[in-house]
Amino acid sequence: MKNILFKGVIAYPITPFNSSEKVDVPLFKKLVERLVISGSHAIAPLGSTGVLPYLTDEEKEAITEATIQQVAGRVPTLIGVSNLTTERTIYHAQFAEKSGATAVMIIPMSYWKLTDDEIVKHYDAVASKISIPIMAYNNPATSGVDMSPALLKRLLEIPNVTMIKESTGDVQRMHTLRKELGEDVAFYNGSNPLALAAFAAGANGWCTAAPNLIPELNIALYHAVQKNDFVKAQQLFYDQLDLLKFIVAKGLPRAVKAGLNLLGEDGGHLRSPLKPLTDMESQELKQILTQLNEKSKADYQLI
Amino acid sequence: MKNILFKGVIAYPITPFNSSEKVDVPLFKKLVERLVISGSHAIAPLGSTGVLPYLTDEEKEAITEATIQQVAGRVPTLIGVSNLTTERTIYHAQFAEKSGATAVMIIPMSYWKLTDDEIVKHYDAVASKISIPIMAYNNPATSGVDMSPALLKRLLEIPNVTMIKESTGDVQRMHTLRKELGEDVAFYNGSNPLALAAFAAGANGWCTAAPNLIPELNIALYHAVQKNDFVKAQQLFYDQLDLLKFIVAKGLPRAVKAGLNLLGEDGGHLRSPLKPLTDMESQELKQILTQLNEKSKADYQLI
Amino acid sequence: MKNILFKGVIAYPITPFNSSEKVDVPLFKKLVERLVISGSHAIAPLGSTGVLPYLTDEEKEAITEATIQQVAGRVPTLIGVSNLTTERTIYHAQFAEKSGATAVMIIPMSYWKLTDDEIVKHYDAVASKISIPIMAYNNPATSGVDMSPALLKRLLEIPNVTMIKESTGDVQRMHTLRKELGEDVAFYNGSNPLALAAFAAGANGWCTAAPNLIPELNIALYHAVQKNDFVKAQQLFYDQLDLLKFIVAKGLPRAVKAGLNLLGEDGGHLRSPLKPLTDMESQELKQILTQLNEKSKADYQLI
Amino acid sequence: MKNILFKGVIAYPITPFNSSEKVDVPLFKKLVERLVISGSHAIAPLGSTGVLPYLTDEEKEAITEATIQQVAGRVPTLIGVSNLTTERTIYHAQFAEKSGATAVMIIPMSYWKLTDDEIVKHYDAVASKISIPIMAYNNPATSGVDMSPALLKRLLEIPNVTMIKESTGDVQRMHTLRKELGEDVAFYNGSNPLALAAFAAGANGWCTAAPNLIPELNIALYHAVQKNDFVKAQQLFYDQLDLLKFIVAKGLPRAVKAGLNLLGEDGGHLRSPLKPLTDMESQELKQILTQLNEKSKADYQLI
Repeated sequence: MKNILFKGVIAYPITPFNSSEKVDVPLFKKLVERLVISGSHAIAPLGSTGVLPYLTDEEKEAITEATIQQVAGRVPTLIGVSNLTTERTIYHAQFAEKSGATAVMIIPMSYWKLTDDEIVKHYDAVASKISIPIMAYNNPATSGVDMSPALLKRLLEIPNVTMIKESTGDVQRMHTLRKELGEDVAFYNGSNPLALAAFAAGANGWCTAAPNLIPELNIALYHAVQKNDFVKAQQLFYDQLDLLKFIVAKGLPRAVKAGLNLLGEDGGHLRSPLKPLTDMESQELKQILTQLNEKSKADYQLI
Repeated sequence: MKNILFKGVIAYPITPFNSSEKVDVPLFKKLVERLVISGSHAIAPLGSTGVLPYLTDEEKEAITEATIQQVAGRVPTLIGVSNLTTERTIYHAQFAEKSGATAVMIIPMSYWKLTDDEIVKHYDAVASKISIPIMAYNNPATSGVDMSPALLKRLLEIPNVTMIKESTGDVQRMHTLRKELGEDVAFYNGSNPLALAAFAAGANGWCTAAPNLIPELNIALYHAVQKNDFVKAQQLFYDQLDLLKFIVAKGLPRAVKAGLNLLGEDGGHLRSPLKPLTDMESQELKQILTQLNEKSKADYQLI
Repeated sequence: MKNILFKGVIAYPITPFNSSEKVDVPLFKKLVERLVISGSHAIAPLGSTGVLPYLTDEEKEAITEATIQQVAGRVPTLIGVSNLTTERTIYHAQFAEKSGATAVMIIPMSYWKLTDDEIVKHYDAVASKISIPIMAYNNPATSGVDMSPALLKRLLEIPNVTMIKESTGDVQRMHTLRKELGEDVAFYNGSNPLALAAFAAGANGWCTAAPNLIPELNIALYHAVQKNDFVKAQQLFYDQLDLLKFIVAKGLPRAVKAGLNLLGEDGGHLRSPLKPLTDMESQELKQILTQLNEKSKADYQLI
Repeated sequence: MKNILFKGVIAYPITPFNSSEKVDVPLFKKLVERLVISGSHAIAPLGSTGVLPYLTDEEKEAITEATIQQVAGRVPTLIGVSNLTTERTIYHAQFAEKSGATAVMIIPMSYWKLTDDEIVKHYDAVASKISIPIMAYNNPATSGVDMSPALLKRLLEIPNVTMIKESTGDVQRMHTLRKELGEDVAFYNGSNPLALAAFAAGANGWCTAAPNLIPELNIALYHAVQKNDFVKAQQLFYDQLDLLKFIVAKGLPRAVKAGLNLLGEDGGHLRSPLKPLTDMESQELKQILTQLNEKSKADYQLI
């Protein structure tokens, strides 16, 4: 099997801003620390949750360095280095490697829908310039391009492209990946509402922003799967489903920031045009968190 | 909990025709017998697999009676009685009850997209004329109307609408149903490629034409789920996935007929405009069945 | 050019029922007469508007004969003879021919999605049994199958398949048809909200239920197009657009029946599960008709 | 009526790069000059065609200045200033105004789907910092968010948001806009294959990259519309449709560069990950241009 660097719950921190909408690095480190001590199995900054596309080059570098410093080798790190141009993607991938990242994640961002050949050349150009592994990420909703199983197969021929993250939201796609790519390929689920179905389908890990709010539940779900106890996994999944659906529906950065506030934590500010949840939305989130808390006070104290 | 009449593998027989495209009742009975002795947990004629909409009133009655006679109480029967008009749906539902059916299945067939109120009135009109239970079936691909969880909730307020069959092909819909309808409502999966994900989501049963070809595998999957052994369930699911996807992709009546022939059984003829699989398609099916056979000669002998 | 039998406004009557939900043939004839004297260029019963799929064989025959009798050669007739099975389609096509229909319209109704070959064989089987022309009709929303331009090209090789009706609702499809099928093929628009765009794209006619309510406006639009006066056509189109969108959104039989009542005409009853417009929907329709009336009292008096 | 600054054919230049993938400003100016002297009615750099999202801040400024210098007031200019963050959008809008732009175009780029309120605040923040007009641009395929007619109505309440560009590719959306926004609002079509249908629907102008290759045809189509000669417009539209569909299907920057080369012009290089058309694609484009040339040597000489 290709070397499996990540498994379990791969946690995505938000990128917090101060009141002038500048990146707040000290707060970011604090949020990363929460994720590590909650038991997350890996830390993945600069994803959608981390509003990667809204950051300048300098900000991306600061977040990369802050992550690696703060994690300090306790768990592996997976740095998002996606960029519209190949040149900038190479630049940030090299920066991540030099800074000590375990691996990088790359989604083929595209304004103009890229052809399969353009995508292969893009990954190939980046891969040839670094020696750490690459997780190829398919999420047509944000990248604008849906990488077919056949294309992912081509990408996996590049030596250091070793992992696939799949976020189409359709579990049948995961079944196809597993069948077409073979059991040896590590694949990861990036769709929160599919957490249970993806583990049932054989996913090696779950890429999620939920541990910012309910790490105990996320990790408990993974442990139930590990123990082949799907009755327990099903119950844990349904317990957390409302929260998972809420954060996806409202946008992860907005929802996580609001949730942190409800938990008594500092979630910082958002960068415009993103705006905080409305009062009604916050109220809905509070209710979900309160219900979770009441339902299982013994197992996980949330709010 | 509302009374659960069906669980496990609910098998859908095809309706075979003779060379003049007339319904072949003796052959139909033989095919039903195969399903019963293979261990299927219920028999459901006159569904999509049974080409219900291509049959005359008389033919539907003949199939209904033949099923109940042949099954002879060994397992429950679920008779499809859907029709575009309310009047004909009542007629066939009453016929099924009088003939001794355990329950009826009704999809809101619609040429003109029905409003929620029209659908509720349709089910209500039928339900008030029979006393056996009704399974409400959602499959927008064939009915042309997608019943929302909110609408299904309304239907469940009708006393003898007690079961839901869901075939949108999206496992997230099942999660929503389970959350919105409550754990007490019996829900059934009608999407073959979602067999594993649906059981993981808590489905009570699997409505499928696959037992016409691979009953051992279908039933083994259900048993693994029953034993909370998802490692085994996952393996069994991936073993049969190619077959499940094939029969869905090619159309259940066409694919089952061809599969029966490959297994050395008489599958009868199709009614036009449906035509047999092409040679290339049959070849592909043969390969899938052969691989299944080779892979696990010990567990299930197929072809 | 293949012989163009129809052009202009091809009017679709509803099939009215009496209070026992039986077909009301005398009222149907009255409604057909209104369409003919209003200036419609052809009469097309037994389409979606005429709830073809909700009728028995005997009812279809009665409607066919009533149409031809009532029209009495004043304009051409286009009889819908579509059926799920090939055998029944042939039966009704032959009945229409024998009764004196100018042509028949056939949509490949499909419960099971038909392959291209199955569709070709279906049309071929019917065409070989009649000598009047066939209009092939593409409307994936009701038939469940989208016939590609390539498939339509194959159908046009059958000698008496001479016309295409297109109702995907996408004007780009019409452009493709015109380019791929050639200028000589008569094509017809079946999407009311595309009336203007379709004429701009070169459609020979407009298949519509709107003349049941606003024949003057429909015909005036066609005349403006004929005179190459698109400034006038545009104005007439926007004048009637709200009505066109309303009848499509609410379902043609329901909306036309309600509109007839608002105009002081008898629209008969609907057959269940179809139900009348709600009061709020009727109110909205009344407002649309009233506005039309006020806007151009001189040109067209409606309500 | 709100002041109409643009009408007719609004031409979008590509942004050419040199062999090191740096912006080639002299070549850009030459390409702008071609557009102006061909008779285009306005010049709109830094759109999708101009690969706006692939450029640095400095490159965007250079292109803005080069455009205004080269056009030198002969026709109005419409500068694309869209950016993911509100802060950068304001920055570039102010730069465009200071440089002498006639107006700016803004699409609500969004990685995270923006709420209606976020979008209104975004436009409002930019509009309050400039005094030239804004064209609000709806193109869900590239922005990831579909602005409803109701939202566009809200945007038009901002004093200097005065124009709407619509690129969903659905002519029915344009009809709705025209009805809901009123005849006084200037709206523009951004979908090449809808050029004819959009003019029929009343569009004030056509935003297109096609004049880089076939300006005579694009402008002739607009003139036919102006003269209310839709027979001519229809013929001109079908003449150029293959070219319009090709450049959209292959991506405007790639297709325009290849087309320029086929016309004997320097189209510069692309920036990675974008790659030139394959040989087969170029061959197809050559054929389309050659056919256009042969068909009407008298009217427009192309290749």
